[in-house]
Amino acid sequence: METTATEKTPLVGIIMGSKSDLPVMEGCTAELERLGVPYELVIASAHRNPAQVHEWAETAADRGIKVIVAAAGKAAHLGGVVAAFTPLPVIGVPMKTSDLGGLDSLLSMVQMPSGVPVACVAINGAKNAAIYATQILGATMPEYREAIAQLKREMAEA
Amino acid sequence: METTATEKTPLVGIIMGSKSDLPVMEGCTAELERLGVPYELVIASAHRNPAQVHEWAETAADRGIKVIVAAAGKAAHLGGVVAAFTPLPVIGVPMKTSDLGGLDSLLSMVQMPSGVPVACVAINGAKNAAIYATQILGATMPEYREAIAQLKREMAEA
Amino acid sequence: METTATEKTPLVGIIMGSKSDLPVMEGCTAELERLGVPYELVIASAHRNPAQVHEWAETAADRGIKVIVAAAGKAAHLGGVVAAFTPLPVIGVPMKTSDLGGLDSLLSMVQMPSGVPVACVAINGAKNAAIYATQILGATMPEYREAIAQLKREMAEA
Amino acid sequence: METTATEKTPLVGIIMGSKSDLPVMEGCTAELERLGVPYELVIASAHRNPAQVHEWAETAADRGIKVIVAAAGKAAHLGGVVAAFTPLPVIGVPMKTSDLGGLDSLLSMVQMPSGVPVACVAINGAKNAAIYATQILGATMPEYREAIAQLKREMAEA
Amino acid sequence: METTATEKTPLVGIIMGSKSDLPVMEGCTAELERLGVPYELVIASAHRNPAQVHEWAETAADRGIKVIVAAAGKAAHLGGVVAAFTPLPVIGVPMKTSDLGGLDSLLSMVQMPSGVPVACVAINGAKNAAIYATQILGATMPEYREAIAQLKREMAEA
Amino acid sequence: METTATEKTPLVGIIMGSKSDLPVMEGCTAELERLGVPYELVIASAHRNPAQVHEWAETAADRGIKVIVAAAGKAAHLGGVVAAFTPLPVIGVPMKTSDLGGLDSLLSMVQMPSGVPVACVAINGAKNAAIYATQILGATMPEYREAIAQLKREMAEA
Amino acid sequence: METTATEKTPLVGIIMGSKSDLPVMEGCTAELERLGVPYELVIASAHRNPAQVHEWAETAADRGIKVIVAAAGKAAHLGGVVAAFTPLPVIGVPMKTSDLGGLDSLLSMVQMPSGVPVACVAINGAKNAAIYATQILGATMPEYREAIAQLKREMAEA
Amino acid sequence: METTATEKTPLVGIIMGSKSDLPVMEGCTAELERLGVPYELVIASAHRNPAQVHEWAETAADRGIKVIVAAAGKAAHLGGVVAAFTPLPVIGVPMKTSDLGGLDSLLSMVQMPSGVPVACVAINGAKNAAIYATQILGATMPEYREAIAQLKREMAEA
Repeated sequence: METTATEKTPLVGIIMGSKSDLPVMEGCTAELERLGVPYELVIASAHRNPAQVHEWAETAADRGIKVIVAAAGKAAHLGGVVAAFTPLPVIGVPMKTSDLGGLDSLLSMVQMPSGVPVACVAINGAKNAAIYATQILGATMPEYREAIAQLKREMAEA
Repeated sequence: METTATEKTPLVGIIMGSKSDLPVMEGCTAELERLGVPYELVIASAHRNPAQVHEWAETAADRGIKVIVAAAGKAAHLGGVVAAFTPLPVIGVPMKTSDLGGLDSLLSMVQMPSGVPVACVAINGAKNAAIYATQILGATMPEYREAIAQLKREMAEA
Repeated sequence: METTATEKTPLVGIIMGSKSDLPVMEGCTAELERLGVPYELVIASAHRNPAQVHEWAETAADRGIKVIVAAAGKAAHLGGVVAAFTPLPVIGVPMKTSDLGGLDSLLSMVQMPSGVPVACVAINGAKNAAIYATQILGATMPEYREAIAQLKREMAEA
Repeated sequence: METTATEKTPLVGIIMGSKSDLPVMEGCTAELERLGVPYELVIASAHRNPAQVHEWAETAADRGIKVIVAAAGKAAHLGGVVAAFTPLPVIGVPMKTSDLGGLDSLLSMVQMPSGVPVACVAINGAKNAAIYATQILGATMPEYREAIAQLKREMAEA
Repeated sequence: METTATEKTPLVGIIMGSKSDLPVMEGCTAELERLGVPYELVIASAHRNPAQVHEWAETAADRGIKVIVAAAGKAAHLGGVVAAFTPLPVIGVPMKTSDLGGLDSLLSMVQMPSGVPVACVAINGAKNAAIYATQILGATMPEYREAIAQLKREMAEA
Repeated sequence: METTATEKTPLVGIIMGSKSDLPVMEGCTAELERLGVPYELVIASAHRNPAQVHEWAETAADRGIKVIVAAAGKAAHLGGVVAAFTPLPVIGVPMKTSDLGGLDSLLSMVQMPSGVPVACVAINGAKNAAIYATQILGATMPEYREAIAQLKREMAEA
Repeated sequence: METTATEKTPLVGIIMGSKSDLPVMEGCTAELERLGVPYELVIASAHRNPAQVHEWAETAADRGIKVIVAAAGKAAHLGGVVAAFTPLPVIGVPMKTSDLGGLDSLLSMVQMPSGVPVACVAINGAKNAAIYATQILGATMPEYREAIAQLKREMAEA
Repeated sequence: METTATEKTPLVGIIMGSKSDLPVMEGCTAELERLGVPYELVIASAHRNPAQVHEWAETAADRGIKVIVAAAGKAAHLGGVVAAFTPLPVIGVPMKTSDLGGLDSLLSMVQMPSGVPVACVAINGAKNAAIYATQILGATMPEYREAIAQLKREMAEA
């Protein structure tokens, strides 16, 4: 399980099921950096590396992580598996797939059963996952709410 | 625009597009009450009452709201319209529809364009929206993280 | 918000959510020009520039606009948002998307709730939106009905 | 081909493919009556009564009709067939179907090829078709624009 | 309306909505030629050239045509329009579309209402339409049944 | 394998995969009777009774059958299996299903690979299958073409 | 976690995500009993009881289980989660859902990523899961192959 | 019917409907070779070569085959046809299609009616079919269970 992280203690934990998701998910890390949010990033599959995923998810809150972003494609279980092991909010990013366009990833992530939600952004919505993670931090942390307010001002002016 | 609210200052603002969404969304208010989270609830349509929706959304953060839950069906724009007017995180609840089963509501909510995310739970996922809202509060507020941890313990034992 | 317009007072107002919609929507402006219909065109997002969209929609009728064409993709709320602020008929053009082919855009536009219709043409149906806008003008303005009749004669002969 | 009409010269022509569509389409006639718009209504199938449909469509404009509402289900060709024979704008109402929920009706109506648009409202969107027809009239006829403005005020107050 | 035909009196009439369908439909003419079935081919749109389509369909049986193949895409009404004007069996070929893959064409063709069937082959199934047309001829004409039997032997050996 | 047949030598062979398809398929036999077309009807599953299906299909032409109607639901292979064993044209009737509405049946029937077509009517289109079978007979047999012409006259007058 | 089991050492382990799946899954246990296959059955959610699911899956092979049947609905992760923890073959039964008919369950189960397959039967295919589990046993155990052969004879005669 | 096989007596029989499926299905043979599982491979269409498919399926068990992998696209009947003629478990591999992405292949394979299951892996899931076939062998044959256990260890370390 490879891990990369910003120098400051990460507030957002990003996990993705496969290295092939990385080019899309760099849209997430780039946006977090622009918004000034420290994060860590791991690549681990819910199916091929279940023990590592569980440990990462179970210890995330204690390491100071406040929000998790989980990206996966096809039968995209990663978000649900992580959500089962943490009280933190999990943002799902359903990856576009070459056959069904990502409808499979989306339904596999968003249709979570009662009790253990994963909240999804759009298919390949890596940048929006970063913004949403920052909005969650901003719910109670003023500097991140200000970062979002600033982003909104920039978009309105663009 | 009808408004109902708990006595304590609301932390979660629930908005839904139509009175007909209320029976499903009572699954959300019931769960918030069980988790001890104060909320307010309004019924207002993004299309029929746009000015009221905008004002409600724009003032939500200043009234102390930390998270918004938006429920709507069919061409479900309510979440996106609210998200355009607030820096707060918006949780979308796509309502089941009688013709397309809610696939229309889901895609209308989850496929938000870059810059303004709405994170969706499952079709008719009212209870999970409550849990997710509490998880967002719990990201930084210990009593709500404990409420989620307690919920997970209860589910594991059930 | 960029605006371009024909010299004559515009009768059709075209709005699109993103600059990336322009290559497709030039099929709309080209057809309006061929049919001799003056128009104006703005690029503004319902989510990133909500205030500008509202003002543009609210003032359209007073500026002499008779019909609005709104093009957007994914969770395509632009048509509905505009329709909420104007008594004018709004024609929706759902944009093709790279993941779901435009089914998301179509459902987000066409499935409008009771009271505030948006009438949709086909996915990427920019040229047909121009023809339909002209048909709406032609309902009561003879020169535009004649333009449509002429178009039908040309198609029958082609 | 049965025809019913208001006493005043009809401005809106409603056509539907089957008597079974009538209960839904009474939502359209009721709304037109509420908005004060005279209409006529015929039941005729594009496939079983093609000659009657053609004649009705070809003569509609000369009879004073300004807008056509066409409702049909399944392989819903009625809108397109009518549009082929008239320069008037045609509003399609895709009917809900018992097997595919109306997705078949919707795609059969909305995906019209270049040159001959049908603009669709939602599945079973009979009432919205009435409002949209009135908006088309209101584009150039002040009393109908005022009727729409009044409707919007009522909705905002409801 | 362009028409091409084999020298022998055509038994199969092929009609398609647009010149752009021709590359796919050459799979149909090539197979008919291989099976020794005389045909004629016209390009005419149900929406842009309705009068020509009607006349062609109404006179097909009298010209000696026994089976019709109708190819169209998107809101593919051509098969149904032809079927309304002829007692001959109509084989529909739903064309692949760039946005919805041809699901729109398929549903628009196959879901015909009671009384006026169009029987569909697969999306872009031009070759199979030729085989099916020959099977229809072969139902009562021995030389065409033998042509199909021969085709089946060749496939079994291939 | 149960078989029922009209007294006259059957021209249409109807096969269905399950007794549960019979209520819908009685719409087919009723229409054939109304049109004066002799038929036989068998219930046999391509998967549970493959040997019987093969023998029935292989001997159909020699028994005088000219057209086959095959009705099946879900992974509806019956039409294709029959088509593999006969040179006769096979009309597929995809049965409505309780979970996917019949989209599974439709795609399983209509998307036949190159060389062995099954031509499909609408989901649950039992009556139209009878009309189409009669149209195939009528391609070369005048009394059945007249039966279809008569049906069309009746529909136009209805 | 409730467990029920036949007296003989179970060869098939059935797991389902919710008590509400039991009425459908009794079609599985009934068929296993008819085929003489010993089984055990547990109800445990991959999301609400992850630790129990893991332990059950990890110890299944050592308890003598040869095949696992996993039934779940919506974002149906149970099959994949079990498959991550056992070398045994896992048969997925996607449960019908009230909104999307089970398409969500099916895609969530069948679209497993490379390395960790779950093989799916039809939506609500509880009986077929029992037959397939017996076929897997029968691949190398003669008495179960004979049970399948007997079942096939009975179906052919039915 | 071309056949290729490993030197050792094959335990897995792979059948595919068309030579065009071979590039994808080489992912299956490569994985079987890596796992040390002997196999045979044939190309034969259920529709064009039905007699050969039946004979191959009927004799598979007697030749020592324990599991069958059937790959087909569009109206993918091959798995069901094979399953009708053998007591062995059949793993379906739905092939991606150029128009509907493989949704047609998937539904045609997975939605098998009661009594004759085909268990499906993902669209184009050739490698997973190999792993699943090996898991079936490993249910009772220790060397193949060990091969799977080894694969899981390698994936966890990768």
